Amino acid sequence: MPEFRKDPVTGRWVIIATDRARRPSDFSREQVVIKGGGYCPFCPGHEEKTPPEILAYRQSGGPNEPGWTLRVIPNKFPVLRVEGDFNRQGEGVYDRMNGIGAHEVIIETPDHNATLADLPEKRVEDVFWAFRDRIVDLKKDRRMQYLLAFKNHGESAGASLEHSHSQLIALPVIPRRVQEELEGARRYFEFKDRCIFCDIVRQEVDTGTRVVLETQAFLVICPFAARFPFELWILPRRHHSHFEETDPAAMANLAWVMRVVLRKLDRVLEKPAYNFIIHTAPVQEAPMDHYHWHIELAPRLTRIAGFEWGTGFYINPTPPEEAARFLREAGLG
Amino acid sequence: MPEFRKDPVTGRWVIIATDRARRPSDFSREQVVIKGGGYCPFCPGHEEKTPPEILAYRQSGGPNEPGWTLRVIPNKFPVLRVEGDFNRQGEGVYDRMNGIGAHEVIIETPDHNATLADLPEKRVEDVFWAFRDRIVDLKKDRRMQYLLAFKNHGESAGASLEHSHSQLIALPVIPRRVQEELEGARRYFEFKDRCIFCDIVRQEVDTGTRVVLETQAFLVICPFAARFPFELWILPRRHHSHFEETDPAAMANLAWVMRVVLRKLDRVLEKPAYNFIIHTAPVQEAPMDHYHWHIELAPRLTRIAGFEWGTGFYINPTPPEEAARFLREAGLG
Repeated sequence: MPEFRKDPVTGRWVIIATDRARRPSDFSREQVVIKGGGYCPFCPGHEEKTPPEILAYRQSGGPNEPGWTLRVIPNKFPVLRVEGDFNRQGEGVYDRMNGIGAHEVIIETPDHNATLADLPEKRVEDVFWAFRDRIVDLKKDRRMQYLLAFKNHGESAGASLEHSHSQLIALPVIPRRVQEELEGARRYFEFKDRCIFCDIVRQEVDTGTRVVLETQAFLVICPFAARFPFELWILPRRHHSHFEETDPAAMANLAWVMRVVLRKLDRVLEKPAYNFIIHTAPVQEAPMDHYHWHIELAPRLTRIAGFEWGTGFYINPTPPEEAARFLREAGLG
Repeated sequence: MPEFRKDPVTGRWVIIATDRARRPSDFSREQVVIKGGGYCPFCPGHEEKTPPEILAYRQSGGPNEPGWTLRVIPNKFPVLRVEGDFNRQGEGVYDRMNGIGAHEVIIETPDHNATLADLPEKRVEDVFWAFRDRIVDLKKDRRMQYLLAFKNHGESAGASLEHSHSQLIALPVIPRRVQEELEGARRYFEFKDRCIFCDIVRQEVDTGTRVVLETQAFLVICPFAARFPFELWILPRRHHSHFEETDPAAMANLAWVMRVVLRKLDRVLEKPAYNFIIHTAPVQEAPMDHYHWHIELAPRLTRIAGFEWGTGFYINPTPPEEAARFLREAGLG
C-alpha cells in the first residue's frame, strides 16, 4: 500500500510508493563523467579568466597565480551584487528591490578531473572551511540575512561547468522554505521544549532502519519523509543552530563523513548527479535552541514534474528504509 | 541591475536576472518531437491494455472499445488508491497514513501523433470538461480534500508516455504550496477586502507590459514574480474560487485561449516541454471571496538546481515583460 508520510519539521506530506519500490538499477539517469579536454576557466594557469580571488588556500604562488589547492572567486555572472542600495519600491500590488547580495564560487580542487568524492579527506575538509570562512566574512555585512552554501554536481543537477565547484549565495531576505523549516522547528520546541532535530537523531539511532552511517559527531540517515529516492540528511549529533560554529574536530569528521557518503552514492547509483545544501540558521540571529544545522543531499534520479511543482508534494518511489539499506551495505565506511 | 521581486500572493521572492536577460534562442532545451512507431497502450484498439475506463467522450463504440475522442482511465500504476482507510499512525516524532486517494489519466486524443496544441478547439475544450466532470464526481468522496489537475508535456517535464495525456490526482490532504497560496490570498483579503487575483487582473490590464492575451473571459500574463522564463498565468476575469464552477461559455473561451497559448509557445520556443497546473480551491470548501482559480503554465527551459530546491527561491533569467513581448508578437491570437 502506498503511504503518506509527514515531515515532522515542515509538515510536508510525501507519498512513498511502496508498491513499485525502485531499486538503484531501476533509475535511468545521467552518469557524471568528467570529459575534460576543453578550455576551463577554473583550471590553474587560467586565473586571469576569472574575477580576482576572494580567498585561496595555497601551497605556493601569490594571489591569482597557480599553486592553490582551493580558490574562492565572485561568480563571473553574479545574480546578486554587493554594491548599491535596496531602493525598495512598490508598484500597485507588487514589491521589488535591487538585487543586493553576493554570489561566490568555491573551486574545490586544481585538478579538473577530480570530483569531490575523489579528493583526499583534507581537501574535502577545506571546502567546508572555505564555506565557514566566507560565511564569517559575509555576515559582517548586516544586510545579509541568509547565506546559502550548496553544490550542484553534474549537468542534470544544474552544474554549468564540470570542474568541481560549490557555491555560496548571500541573500538580504530569508527564503520561504527556510522560514518554513525554522517555524516548524520553533513550533515543536514550544510544544515539547526539545529540538526536533535532536529528537530525530535519538529516534533514528534507536530505530536503525534509516541509518546509513554513524560517527562520533554525525548521523547520516535517509529521512522518514524523503522527497527523493536516496535523499540523505547529515545531522550533527551535538546541537548547534549555525554551521559556522562547527569546531575543528567536528569539521574533520564532517569531511570524512561527506567523502564516505559520496563514495557510497557513486558505488550504489553509478556516479549520479546530485545537489547538497547546508541548512543553517540565519546568520544575523543569535544561537537558537530550536534549530539544528544539517546538510540535505539528494541524487538526481527522478524528474521534478508538474505535480511536485504545483503542490510542493513529492512522490518518492524508493522507501528510505530500502535506500538506507543499499547505502549501508555498500561499505566504504 | 538584477532585481528581487515578491509574489504578492505567496510572498515568495524571486531574482529576475535582468543583466543577462535570455532570449528564446538562448535556451538549450528538449524539443518535444512525437516519435510514434512503438507500441502505445493509449492508442485506440489497445483499450484492454489499460484499466477499464471511468469516463469517455465517444462518437461510436461501447465502453473500452475504439470510437472515443477522449478517455479517462485509472493510472495503471497509481500512487494512491480509493479503497481502504487511512489507518493514521504515529511513530515517535513521525506520522503516516495509508495512500488513500485517486490517480487518473485523461487520454486527450485517439491520435498518437497530435499534441494538445494540435487538437481542434472543441477537443481542447473536452479536456477541460473531463477535468470538471471527474472533479465533480471525485469530490463526492468527502475524504478527498484537494483535486490536482495537471499536464506534463515532454519527457523533460516528466511525461513518461508520449501519447498526449493529462492527469488528475485526488488527495486527502491539502498540499503545503496550495495552503500557502490560500493563506496569502486570505491575508490580502483581510487587509483590503478585495481578491488579490482580481487586483492583479486589473493592474495587469492597466500596465499592459506583461499581458500576452486578453479575451472576454480570460487574461493571460507573464506574472510579475515569474519563477521560470516564459512562465504564464491564465486568469479568469470573473471571480470564481473553484474551477469546476466554470460555465460553458467560459469553458469554450478557455479552450481557445489554451490552444493559442500553446501554439505561441511552440512557435517562440520551438515546441518546448511544459507543465500546467490548475490552481483551484479545495473541493470540500464553499465558494471563497478571497481565492480565484487560475492556470499556471511553465515551459521547461531551465534546470531546477540546488539553490531552488533548498530555498524555494528562483532565479529567472528572462524578465516577464520581455517574455510577454515575445509571446504577444508571435501572433496566432
